[in-house]
Amino acid sequence: MSNKKEIAVVLSGCGVYDGAEIHESVLTLLAIARSGANYRVFAPDADQYHVVNHITGAEMPEKRNVLVEAARIARGNISPLSKLDVQSFDALIFPGGFGVAKNLSTFATQGVGFTIDNDVKQAINKFHVSGKPIGVMCIAPVLIPKILDGAEVTVGNDTGTINVIEKMNGRHKIASQGQVVIDHRNKIISTPCYMLDARIDEIADSTQKLVDKVIEMIG
Amino acid sequence: MSNKKEIAVVLSGCGVYDGAEIHESVLTLLAIARSGANYRVFAPDADQYHVVNHITGAEMPEKRNVLVEAARIARGNISPLSKLDVQSFDALIFPGGFGVAKNLSTFATQGVGFTIDNDVKQAINKFHVSGKPIGVMCIAPVLIPKILDGAEVTVGNDTGTINVIEKMNGRHKIASQGQVVIDHRNKIISTPCYMLDARIDEIADSTQKLVDKVIEMIG
Repeated sequence: MSNKKEIAVVLSGCGVYDGAEIHESVLTLLAIARSGANYRVFAPDADQYHVVNHITGAEMPEKRNVLVEAARIARGNISPLSKLDVQSFDALIFPGGFGVAKNLSTFATQGVGFTIDNDVKQAINKFHVSGKPIGVMCIAPVLIPKILDGAEVTVGNDTGTINVIEKMNGRHKIASQGQVVIDHRNKIISTPCYMLDARIDEIADSTQKLVDKVIEMIG
Repeated sequence: MSNKKEIAVVLSGCGVYDGAEIHESVLTLLAIARSGANYRVFAPDADQYHVVNHITGAEMPEKRNVLVEAARIARGNISPLSKLDVQSFDALIFPGGFGVAKNLSTFATQGVGFTIDNDVKQAINKFHVSGKPIGVMCIAPVLIPKILDGAEVTVGNDTGTINVIEKMNGRHKIASQGQVVIDHRNKIISTPCYMLDARIDEIADSTQKLVDKVIEMIG
């Protein structure tokens, strides 16, 4: 049996405005491979909240499926999130993108009262209960204090999102590009990525740092 | 005025089976940024040949636009290929994916008798005539000998594609993952990427090597 670390990556579609942020997603997979670990990609088998034209920002009169679109990033190697078996993995990572706030949860439309997709909630809960680390980037950290009371995360310096995190009894730590915030008690590692202005090479550095910390915490 | 090198990257959609290969595309942008150069992303403003479900491989009854989908990879910072002004750039790079063979050309359906999108043809011709280097990865090298008589490229070791290249009077050099083939006379740099089985970190190494050689050749 291989003693390679196995990391589950959850995507929320394919494209920053209605799905998973593509650079963060690809660079997370790259960072995992660079660290000598294996990844497996998951996404909910559900309709996207909507489809956005990434040039104009306008909504498009289409329906797309989160899993089917996320498969573009995963080159077809993807499984429905409902099939994620926590026993087979050492850690869980969520790249960002509006898909986290539109497809994995209702944060984009409901603010602090948002709800989280049931499979997403279960995945976070099960990894947490098993003492396995969870990495969250960009807007994905907002999911954590909704589930884990008092957890500490960063979304960079976005006042609106920080307010929501604090209203949920989460703790927020301001962070710059390339910084990770570690909640040791809850084994949560977060980093701002495109919640701040960034070049793609800064995103690569941030995702590598997050992945390194996640793997370090697996022990 | 900045003396940073300016590189035009041409995408063919968003997803390996009907558009631009996403890892190759993102890792090309990363490699350019890592090299301290700037990039600008372009794509044809045209319908995709078709839309493919990336889990099942089946065609989907949809229409998508190459430019609009490629904008997902470019986070909205993209221009129609028809607007590419060769004077503003030092080099041109084409990541791969079936989009090259379906949207930028008819290679996937017509084999050796394929035609190339007019804006793609003009871009290659103009960069070539201006003595500016052109980088091509994965299946994109097949475009080159159709336009530049006797040019040398690699697509790895795929017999079918090599035959087509040789029938067009192109020269083909077998290459492994991470190797680049340089046609100094025509200033063409090619590398196989996902034309061979590869891990994502190998793709990152290959795209970085290709970008380094392209920038070296700008001088």
